Amino acid sequence: MTSAWHQHPIQPVSNARTQAARDQFARLAGPPGSFGVLEELATRMAGMQNRLDPRADPCQITLFAADHGVCAAGVAGMPPEVSPSLVRNAIQGGSPSAVLARALDTRLEVVDVGLMHDPGDIPGLIRRRIAPGSTDFRATPAMSDQQLHTALTAGREAVERAAAQGCVLFGGGEIGAGKSTAAGAIACALLGLPPESIAGPGSGHGTPELLVRKAAVIQQAVDHHQRFFSTPLDVLRRLGGFDTAALCGAYIACGQLGITAVVDGFCSSVAALVAVTLHPPLKSWMIFGHRAAEPGQFAIFHTLDKRPILNLDMRHGEGTGALAAIPLIRAACALLHESTPPTP
Amino acid sequence: MTSAWHQHPIQPVSNARTQAARDQFARLAGPPGSFGVLEELATRMAGMQNRLDPRADPCQITLFAADHGVCAAGVAGMPPEVSPSLVRNAIQGGSPSAVLARALDTRLEVVDVGLMHDPGDIPGLIRRRIAPGSTDFRATPAMSDQQLHTALTAGREAVERAAAQGCVLFGGGEIGAGKSTAAGAIACALLGLPPESIAGPGSGHGTPELLVRKAAVIQQAVDHHQRFFSTPLDVLRRLGGFDTAALCGAYIACGQLGITAVVDGFCSSVAALVAVTLHPPLKSWMIFGHRAAEPGQFAIFHTLDKRPILNLDMRHGEGTGALAAIPLIRAACALLHESTPPTP
Repeated sequence: MTSAWHQHPIQPVSNARTQAARDQFARLAGPPGSFGVLEELATRMAGMQNRLDPRADPCQITLFAADHGVCAAGVAGMPPEVSPSLVRNAIQGGSPSAVLARALDTRLEVVDVGLMHDPGDIPGLIRRRIAPGSTDFRATPAMSDQQLHTALTAGREAVERAAAQGCVLFGGGEIGAGKSTAAGAIACALLGLPPESIAGPGSGHGTPELLVRKAAVIQQAVDHHQRFFSTPLDVLRRLGGFDTAALCGAYIACGQLGITAVVDGFCSSVAALVAVTLHPPLKSWMIFGHRAAEPGQFAIFHTLDKRPILNLDMRHGEGTGALAAIPLIRAACALLHESTPPTP
Repeated sequence: MTSAWHQHPIQPVSNARTQAARDQFARLAGPPGSFGVLEELATRMAGMQNRLDPRADPCQITLFAADHGVCAAGVAGMPPEVSPSLVRNAIQGGSPSAVLARALDTRLEVVDVGLMHDPGDIPGLIRRRIAPGSTDFRATPAMSDQQLHTALTAGREAVERAAAQGCVLFGGGEIGAGKSTAAGAIACALLGLPPESIAGPGSGHGTPELLVRKAAVIQQAVDHHQRFFSTPLDVLRRLGGFDTAALCGAYIACGQLGITAVVDGFCSSVAALVAVTLHPPLKSWMIFGHRAAEPGQFAIFHTLDKRPILNLDMRHGEGTGALAAIPLIRAACALLHESTPPTP
C-alpha cells in the first residue's frame, strides 16, 4: 500500500491568516483572549480556510454503522440485533443525532460499513458493507488488510460527498455494538496505558461487572496482538472496527481536502488519535467537539494537547457531541467576520 | 417597600412535568442521563413551561449600561468615557453581543440605567438613566433607596417587554466601567469571602497591581458598610451598581412572569445570587450560561449548587456568555420534542 491515498500529504493551514485573525480580535474592545475558546476557534478556522472571514456552513455529519465481533465477549451495552433499528431511526429522523442535525441545519448521512444484521435497503442509507461485523479480536485480527483499506476509503468517500456539497465542516459518528471496547483497545495499544484507566461505560449502563469484563477483554486482546504492532494501521486493523477505520479515513481525507473535522466522543477521538499518529499535521484540522463521559478520552486529549469545546456529560455517541459543538463554531466565525471595534 | 413588586412570589415550576420529561428521555436509546447536560436542560425547561414540548424561542438579551462611581479608585479596565461608544456599537450591530444576537436570531436591547457620560438619543437605545453613574461606594452607599427601586424596576420592565414579545428565554448583560469591582464587593459581602479570592481581571487586563488594588477597594467598602447589612437589598444598594440592580430586578421578574433566565458571566451571577438570596425558588428559573474567566464566579456556583453550561474562558461580558448558551438550550428542547425511540 505504498502509494495508497491515505499516505498522501495533509494540506497546510495558514499560520499567517491565523495571526491576522488574532490581530483582528485585538482591535475589538477588551484585551486579547477576551473571547476565549470562541476566539481560538475563529482564528483556527481562519487559518484552515486561509481567509479572514471563515465560514462554518454547510456542515455534514456522517454516521458509520458497524458491529464489532468482540461483543461476543459480553462487553456491549446493547446487542447487535438492535443496531439496524438505530440506523433506521437515524435515517427516518427520530434519533437524537437526526433531531440535532435537523435543528442545526446540518446534512446527516448514515453509511453501513458492516452491521452484523443487514438493515436492508432503507431509502437514504448508504451501503458499503464490508462484512457482517468485524472479527472478534480476542484471538484474531479484527479485519484483513483489504477490509481495512475498504473501510478507510468508505470514510474518504463520505468526506468527498461533503466536499461536493460545499461543506466546510465534517463531523463523524458511529452506530453499533462493541464500539467502545474496540476503541478502548486501540487507545491502550497506542498510548501504552492499562485498560482499567481506559474502559468506561460506553453508551451502555456501565455496571462494575461490565467495566471489569471490558478491561479484561482489552488486556487479552492487546497481549495477543501487540507483538505485531509496527504501525498505527496495524493497531487499527487488529483491534479496530469498520467504523473506527472509516472515521480514521474520513479525518485523513479532511486534512487532504481542506475540510475542518469536528471530532465527536470517545470512539471518534480514538480514530482521530490513529489519524494524527499517522499524519501529525492533521491535528491542525481537528476541532474536538465534546468531552464524553468516558475516561479514555482524557488520555487522548492529553496526548494530543487538545481541549474539547463542550463538556456536557453526554454518552450517547452517534455524533451528538460533534453536532452540539457546531453552533459555537458558527458563533465564533460570526464574531470574527462581523464584530467591529467601537468608534469613539 | 412592604408591598413592592419585587417581594411578590415566584411562580412554581412543575416537578411532575420535569419527571415526565425524564421518563420521555428514558424511552430513547441508552441509559438515563445519556444526554447529560442537554437532558438536564430539557427536563428543567419542561418543568418551567409545564409542558412536554418546551420551546426555547423567542429569546431576548437585555444589556444594562451603567458606570460605577468606584472606578474613581482606578480599578476599572477601561474608563467610563468609553462606555457610550460600547453602547452605540451594541445598538448599531457591531459589538460582539450584537453579532452573536443576530447570528442566533435573538432580540437585543440596550437600556441606559446610568452611564456617567450620557450617550444621547441613539435610535433604539432605551433611556432609563437613574443618575450619571452610581456613587463611589468606598465611603457612601452606591445609591439611594429610591434609585435602587428604580433600577430594579428597569430590570422588570425589560422582562415585561420580553414577555410582550412572547419570549421564553431572557438573558441579561451589562456594559460599563467598574462593574466587576462592584460585583466582587457584593459577592464578598454575601458570601463572607476574602476579596483576594474574588477579585479577578473583569473585562480588563488584570495586571497583578490592578488585582491588588481591586481587592483593597473591595475590603475597604465591605468594612465600611457591613454593619448596615441586614437584607440582601442593603448589600445591593450600598455596593451594587444600577446594572447589578436592574439585572437582579430582571431575574426576579423572570420568576414572577414564568420566563427562563439565562445568566451570563460574573456580574450577572452576582445579581442572580442577590435575587436567589431574596427568593430561593428563583434558582429553578435560572440557567447559568457560562463560566467566565473570573474566580468569584466559582464561589457563586458552589453556593447555588449550579453548573454552567459552557466554560469558554470568555471575559468580554455584555451577555456573550448567555448568548453562547442559547443554541444548546434550543438543541436540548429539540431533543425532548422530536426524538423518538427506535422501533424494532
